[in-house]
Amino acid sequence: MKHVKYGECVKCGRTYPAVPDLTTCECGGILDIVYDYAYIKTRLTKEILAARQERSMWRYRELLPVEEAAEPSPLRVGWSPLYEEPRLAEQLGLKRLWVKDDGQNPTASLKDRASAMAVAKAREAGAEVIACSSTGNAASSLAGNAAAAGLSTYIFVPSRAPKGKVAQLMTFGATVISVQGSYEETFELSKQAIDRWGWYNRNAAINPYLSEGKKTVSLEIMEQLNWQVPDYIAISVGDGCTIAGLWKGLKDLYAIGFIEKLPRLISAQAEGCCPLNRAVETGEEWRPMEENTLADSIAVGVPRNADKALAAIRESNGLTVSVSDGEIMAAQKLLGRTCGVFGEPAGVTGMAGVKKLCQRGVIGKNDTVVSVVTGNGLKDVANAIEACGEPITIPSDMDRLLAAFAENHISVD
Amino acid sequence: MKHVKYGECVKCGRTYPAVPDLTTCECGGILDIVYDYAYIKTRLTKEILAARQERSMWRYRELLPVEEAAEPSPLRVGWSPLYEEPRLAEQLGLKRLWVKDDGQNPTASLKDRASAMAVAKAREAGAEVIACSSTGNAASSLAGNAAAAGLSTYIFVPSRAPKGKVAQLMTFGATVISVQGSYEETFELSKQAIDRWGWYNRNAAINPYLSEGKKTVSLEIMEQLNWQVPDYIAISVGDGCTIAGLWKGLKDLYAIGFIEKLPRLISAQAEGCCPLNRAVETGEEWRPMEENTLADSIAVGVPRNADKALAAIRESNGLTVSVSDGEIMAAQKLLGRTCGVFGEPAGVTGMAGVKKLCQRGVIGKNDTVVSVVTGNGLKDVANAIEACGEPITIPSDMDRLLAAFAENHISVD
Repeated sequence: MKHVKYGECVKCGRTYPAVPDLTTCECGGILDIVYDYAYIKTRLTKEILAARQERSMWRYRELLPVEEAAEPSPLRVGWSPLYEEPRLAEQLGLKRLWVKDDGQNPTASLKDRASAMAVAKAREAGAEVIACSSTGNAASSLAGNAAAAGLSTYIFVPSRAPKGKVAQLMTFGATVISVQGSYEETFELSKQAIDRWGWYNRNAAINPYLSEGKKTVSLEIMEQLNWQVPDYIAISVGDGCTIAGLWKGLKDLYAIGFIEKLPRLISAQAEGCCPLNRAVETGEEWRPMEENTLADSIAVGVPRNADKALAAIRESNGLTVSVSDGEIMAAQKLLGRTCGVFGEPAGVTGMAGVKKLCQRGVIGKNDTVVSVVTGNGLKDVANAIEACGEPITIPSDMDRLLAAFAENHISVD
Repeated sequence: MKHVKYGECVKCGRTYPAVPDLTTCECGGILDIVYDYAYIKTRLTKEILAARQERSMWRYRELLPVEEAAEPSPLRVGWSPLYEEPRLAEQLGLKRLWVKDDGQNPTASLKDRASAMAVAKAREAGAEVIACSSTGNAASSLAGNAAAAGLSTYIFVPSRAPKGKVAQLMTFGATVISVQGSYEETFELSKQAIDRWGWYNRNAAINPYLSEGKKTVSLEIMEQLNWQVPDYIAISVGDGCTIAGLWKGLKDLYAIGFIEKLPRLISAQAEGCCPLNRAVETGEEWRPMEENTLADSIAVGVPRNADKALAAIRESNGLTVSVSDGEIMAAQKLLGRTCGVFGEPAGVTGMAGVKKLCQRGVIGKNDTVVSVVTGNGLKDVANAIEACGEPITIPSDMDRLLAAFAENHISVD
């Protein structure tokens, strides 16, 4: 890969050749993939990009750690829609607001971006089995993307994972181990198993290529905004890999001169599990927390990619905001009703954070904001139904309908 | 609309001006939108299309019954991926096989194509409320597309509708009436309510514009195949509107010279509810059937668009195939494991039909087939989990993992 220099430890700075099965540094630190931006600038211009027909994450191949001739992953991942939402902007008191609906991906979450990369790199490594631990979305996305490529998967999820994600896993033919314990315990068992059997590792905090897949979300946002940088980009944060990837994409674009400034990140976590936000707010080291939130995808008490995530939030002069489960479910309804976008609880936590920051007056009428929805609400319908209530249920009878409308104070005349 | 001539009754041939709130003929027949193909040929060529950046159903504006200047619907509908599936083709003994994953749509089903059209036409009609009855997908797609456009919805679903679809409806802020009865009874109540309150009607068998939205699925298939016509296109059939729309798109392309022949349709229904297939097979009039299948979206005992659907199957010299619920769930697994595509039961019924026709030797090694997956499996996870079984559930302990692998005859060494 002419455009990739090496993997560099974010802790000790040691570098490693960018082999396909690269994992972590000897010191335990996470690696970051370092590019030769001068070379990339000779290969990629805005005009070249604009003329490209490919509408998927592989559109940005020059900025991805794969060989130029590498086959894209079989499923169509990325190029999710970015919707401008003037009505919601007005309601919240923002200058402009966009929603990036990354639930529009093959297995219905942003994690497809990382899993597609994992499949591409596993193929380069000649691996036939990929494994990961996950709160659910990384799991189902890996299972789907690997199945499409003819690879086997071993997947470890905490037993709290919602039914929708488990149904995906089973249908995609993964061998699924549901671990009765926290995400931390799930991760540990997967690590032991991967070490023991030598499977290709799709844990995003271990395999440095996965953040590179995730970063395509910000490459897309910026191209969809015609390279006009918003003031803020908001996203939910669990393990830390996604916000780290988002930031990496922005820095890439800045390095090759496609954007002239960097936005500030908004790190949204659940109040019941916000170790990274707490660390930023107190200026101390992060410490583990309980996993007390219904937003299962970001219920990560021991974030595996704290270093990169904290660096991203701090470097961007970012904001942190932690929201209650009630605020999360209110944001789910708000996005559904106003924008027609149905996000899972963790998926809408970024929007819950934006709303809270608006209410507090931290951001407002001079600000432009992009909020990323990271997963589809269909993955966890139990919580949505609980939040929204049940429909009017009657026999097929007009009198009963009229009575039900009256009872529910619905005025149709 | 210069390119639209009128609406024409498929029963008696009477014509009506193409006003935005067009419904059915006085004789009760369903209308078909008739285009001025000579005019369209002066406006649309393959080259014009190829240069177009728009990647949604509105890409085919010249073939859609909207004003040239009409705003597209707010959500990004259409341009779903078409995957070639060589491994599955080989397994089934087909020459070539493609899967069109229409679960990749904003509310995760093909019905978004019709609902986006409904929203566009309701806006033209100046309506603020849209209503429909639906087995679930038309409902959730209408609720989502209307919410994004700031319109209200009244939605009637049979109480058997799966939780995923109901969760979508409630989150999108629809007023939902869950009818304790069959789809037929649900439809009847919606009809009475629509007549009474004058809501804009999104029932696809009443509003002739909706099939025109649905037809974009075949416009896309053909463009994605670079206008090379497959031997067969397979799709599941319930109410009849979708296969009718699919056929209309193909005939449009033939009429403007974009394709040189027409494929044969494969109409796949559930054995427990196959009134249209039975009519084709016996050559008799269709008669109502019970709704005995877990494929809820096509459990339609009284198909509302029988005339157009039967005409489509017969005109195309099509094949009919009816499959058991077991065959449907087997097809769901097959698509998941081999292609990484997770379809809902009705969504994979087309593929179940293709498999059955291959097994019977009706189609085979000389045939090229496109199978449309009409909805995402996340809409109905209960059935998927039942079909696939539960995962291995253990504490975070390597010895327990080894024991579980041994018990389940999983060999990892």
